[in-house]
Amino acid sequence: MADPAKKKAIFIDMEPVGRRVQVEAGSTLLAAAQKAGVELIAICGGAGTCNSCLVRLVSGELSPPTLVETEALDREEIEAGYRLACQAVPLGSTRIYIPPDSLTTPQRLQIEGLETDVALDPVIKTVDLKIDPPSLNDLRADTTRLNDALVERGLEVAEIPLPVLTRLSESLRARDWSVRLALRRGEIITCLEPENSPLGLALDIGTTSLAAYLVDLASGRALARSGAMNPQIAYGEDVISRIHFARSEGGREKLQSTLIEAVNGLVHGLCEEANVSKERIVEVVAVGNTAMHHLFAGLPVEQLGGAPYVPAVSDPLDFRSCEIGMDLAPGACIHLPSNIAGFVGADHVAVLLANDIGKSSGRVVALDIGTNTEITLVSEGRLLSCSCASGPAFEGAHIHDGMRAAPGAIERVWIEGERIHLQTIKNQPPVGICGSGILDAVAEMVGAGIINNSGRMEKDSPLVRTNHENQNQAEFVLAPSSISGHGRDIIITRKDINEIQLAKAAIRAGIEILLKEAGIGFSELDEFIVAGAFGNYLDIKSTIRTGMFPPLPLSRFRQVGNAAGIGAKQMLVSAAKRRDAVKIAGKVDYIELTIHPDYMKIFLNAMYF
Amino acid sequence: MADPAKKKAIFIDMEPVGRRVQVEAGSTLLAAAQKAGVELIAICGGAGTCNSCLVRLVSGELSPPTLVETEALDREEIEAGYRLACQAVPLGSTRIYIPPDSLTTPQRLQIEGLETDVALDPVIKTVDLKIDPPSLNDLRADTTRLNDALVERGLEVAEIPLPVLTRLSESLRARDWSVRLALRRGEIITCLEPENSPLGLALDIGTTSLAAYLVDLASGRALARSGAMNPQIAYGEDVISRIHFARSEGGREKLQSTLIEAVNGLVHGLCEEANVSKERIVEVVAVGNTAMHHLFAGLPVEQLGGAPYVPAVSDPLDFRSCEIGMDLAPGACIHLPSNIAGFVGADHVAVLLANDIGKSSGRVVALDIGTNTEITLVSEGRLLSCSCASGPAFEGAHIHDGMRAAPGAIERVWIEGERIHLQTIKNQPPVGICGSGILDAVAEMVGAGIINNSGRMEKDSPLVRTNHENQNQAEFVLAPSSISGHGRDIIITRKDINEIQLAKAAIRAGIEILLKEAGIGFSELDEFIVAGAFGNYLDIKSTIRTGMFPPLPLSRFRQVGNAAGIGAKQMLVSAAKRRDAVKIAGKVDYIELTIHPDYMKIFLNAMYF
Repeated sequence: MADPAKKKAIFIDMEPVGRRVQVEAGSTLLAAAQKAGVELIAICGGAGTCNSCLVRLVSGELSPPTLVETEALDREEIEAGYRLACQAVPLGSTRIYIPPDSLTTPQRLQIEGLETDVALDPVIKTVDLKIDPPSLNDLRADTTRLNDALVERGLEVAEIPLPVLTRLSESLRARDWSVRLALRRGEIITCLEPENSPLGLALDIGTTSLAAYLVDLASGRALARSGAMNPQIAYGEDVISRIHFARSEGGREKLQSTLIEAVNGLVHGLCEEANVSKERIVEVVAVGNTAMHHLFAGLPVEQLGGAPYVPAVSDPLDFRSCEIGMDLAPGACIHLPSNIAGFVGADHVAVLLANDIGKSSGRVVALDIGTNTEITLVSEGRLLSCSCASGPAFEGAHIHDGMRAAPGAIERVWIEGERIHLQTIKNQPPVGICGSGILDAVAEMVGAGIINNSGRMEKDSPLVRTNHENQNQAEFVLAPSSISGHGRDIIITRKDINEIQLAKAAIRAGIEILLKEAGIGFSELDEFIVAGAFGNYLDIKSTIRTGMFPPLPLSRFRQVGNAAGIGAKQMLVSAAKRRDAVKIAGKVDYIELTIHPDYMKIFLNAMYF
Repeated sequence: MADPAKKKAIFIDMEPVGRRVQVEAGSTLLAAAQKAGVELIAICGGAGTCNSCLVRLVSGELSPPTLVETEALDREEIEAGYRLACQAVPLGSTRIYIPPDSLTTPQRLQIEGLETDVALDPVIKTVDLKIDPPSLNDLRADTTRLNDALVERGLEVAEIPLPVLTRLSESLRARDWSVRLALRRGEIITCLEPENSPLGLALDIGTTSLAAYLVDLASGRALARSGAMNPQIAYGEDVISRIHFARSEGGREKLQSTLIEAVNGLVHGLCEEANVSKERIVEVVAVGNTAMHHLFAGLPVEQLGGAPYVPAVSDPLDFRSCEIGMDLAPGACIHLPSNIAGFVGADHVAVLLANDIGKSSGRVVALDIGTNTEITLVSEGRLLSCSCASGPAFEGAHIHDGMRAAPGAIERVWIEGERIHLQTIKNQPPVGICGSGILDAVAEMVGAGIINNSGRMEKDSPLVRTNHENQNQAEFVLAPSSISGHGRDIIITRKDINEIQLAKAAIRAGIEILLKEAGIGFSELDEFIVAGAFGNYLDIKSTIRTGMFPPLPLSRFRQVGNAAGIGAKQMLVSAAKRRDAVKIAGKVDYIELTIHPDYMKIFLNAMYF
């Protein structure tokens, strides 16, 4: 029962966007979100027909489920608190959770990964020192003087690496011998101004995109977040083509320097945004797939390009940022966590870490969808991992009208009879289709019977036309030129559908092989964690309809956004988390799909809708 | 008595040049040396009048001392085995030692410092490994595989620094997984070809000149030696002017890069000479004065330029060669031993080390003459050190006709009545005067009464002329245009004599202050060690005659050549020697002459002849 005393003031708290709004009694949650500026997807305009405005009750009380809701949601989902925001009316102050796939893309980007909810235990410690200056009666060298002051404070003598040493004497004198030292495992990393806290940088180096977070190591708070394309794309869209390029004369160096330049650009932007000097950045944690990890550190990738696909190194790696051309605090170090195999990298370890997979007692699948999709199954304390080549279709590549998630991209599709409803990013006129849009479109086309279970388009559907200029191929017009932003039709071709089939089949086959190895069925899964930028955008209902994910109740799915970035941030602020990551990587049994006897059969089967 | 059985075959062994020659009975040692191609100085042509062909009997029997010898040498010297080679006749096979100042300059350069007579105990260890290659059934990363092989051999897991890691995978595959690892304190420095031994580089970085030695670390044998000018001379002749230059924008970096470039050139030459790849060089030991040490490592020198003249660092310093732009084995390290003070550097520590000064129970002075002269006195187990600004006169700078020790340089002078005898390098017609020549000339001029005890030239001497074009200054014509190699007179001016007075007074004052601090007189010294290139060239008799060194018997002097380089080589092949060097540096009490109350008085007094 709602508290009568609070009837006049109903507050709705929305997670994880972190917004609170006061509403009139009788408002729906959708209206509350709109009032708060939270962009819930509602293609049908709140008519209760598109089922896209899904939310989950955390605390408080809502009106009972409507007929629309009991039809759209199954019992387990309703019991878990799932509701349609256009139907549910708060009966008092309530707190709701909005799953990422109910939010528009720009909104999701804003909220992504700023929190790092772990106990602070950074590898960097600070010590404030006041040191006696030299005189003709006290001729100790600068480093002796500094170390003597540490010993007087009851601390150990510190190592001073050369890049720190070359600037130490000036720093000590410029700060009048009063400094805040940043120490890392007995080494001095830099002398800070006494009033400044040390900063850290978490990097997620994807094949396609880069994400960077600037973190205050004293508070654990992220000060700024930034992203960019991985400029290596100019030398190959996917990992394999970059490995090929790395074989050419100077190729590896070019890939590295291009990447470092982009990362340095991100650092510059982050520091400007937070109004801090990059010399305060004392520690970096970078995660990426194994090839990105190797190219970032300048390691050879040739051996990743052919069987048996072994990494040069799989243990954690620490080196100085200046060794790869990143100019931060003089002695700043970069920590690259363990990777698992040639195609299961430290980014996946970070995903597992961020979701406490190593400590999970249930049966959990965690996957990170990208050009390569890494999947881990936890069952009975075992960790099984594999990697599938899912291709770049979900990043908008190899799709006729594909594009990246940018304004005007169709991100959500709903087919109602012969009417096509579209949601575009920033509600701009459509100019292309991004990954979640193409998946949605295919799922809706399957649902509407426009494509059959083998992926062929039914030419007698009124929404399908024949392109006489292109070998009489069937085409589905998603947005005609009359409404598009560029005056051309936006279409889906047979080839587009095939790309999606290949991608979804690869992922599904990976999941099936892991379940088979563990001897369990998908219905026994307690949780299904979907990580990664694209994993955050996609509509879970569409993944089930296309067969990419197994048909579990929505309540078992969890879209965790850029969990790799979150894991990187956790390792940035916590040495314990670094140790956990080593343990996780060490526990994993890697399954090489290409040599698994059942893979091809399962893969071909998974091509069907 | 000579062994009658061997009378027909008399062999003379000469140290340290390492020559053996068979001579006829009745030949003098001088004739024996000439036959062996050993260039003893004999300005008088063997007449027994110039006393320059001094040698010392090691074993065997010589004819009794002649009257010429008993007049030239004192009793202690004769008892110690000192003889004039032009007088002494071997009575059978004998072994003689030829002190450096009895040899011509080119001869001395050839024999200098190739031996390193210490027990091998290098910081670099090698391990030969055969590693199982990867397969689809064995997906361990390259580094895991390598470390597992080390552990199977009962060894510790090794750290692999990034510069090694970037080349490791290729090396392992190129060598078909059979490699010789060079390990340093638990770190892999490089993978060698299984048949190659690791090499080391010893560097002596002087203000004026550089010396480099390429050493086989498996045998301790020096493979090649090379020298060059320190190209920093373009930015200032002495340490103080370079410190001044380092203060200018980019000055420090310029001084460092110029030096490194020259060192890289030496390395290139050494490797060509020994026909080896520079990638086999796994370890470097570099010694130099504190300013050179700092500039080589890229450390700030500004604080060395003003009171209280403290070094940035005085403890030993290890860093990777690639950090300062030396491209050797991927993980090669540079070890810089301890220095003692702003003006007593690691080169002096190396001199003390090479001469076992730290372990000496006697009373010993050891000094290294250069633009700065570092002096250490050992007495009653105490070590006292100081540094004196002796200036560049002994390197031929600031002297009217001064030149470096090169062909045609007057290296030895002997004045017999009104006749001047000259010895030039390579017996070329004279073109200038090098350091030992100017010291000899001044000593002879003092002896001949041509200059008085205050340094003024006696204008009534027939060898002195008045230069009417230069303020009627007195000039001593050492070599007239008629015999010089360039057709101009080679002269000595009043200013030249003053330069020598300043230099010798600075050195003598330093010695006196140390003796005073220790409370002993010079006659109590057991040994007087003269190190350094110039220290090797000079004529000890002249140093005594000018008052630069105290008047001890010649037998107490020991000219040890480039002892800094020898000490560096010892530290290259022996970790124990590195520990000894730390102990020596830690034991020294440094005396700052500029604030010593008696310094100025003693210095002014020492200006007189």
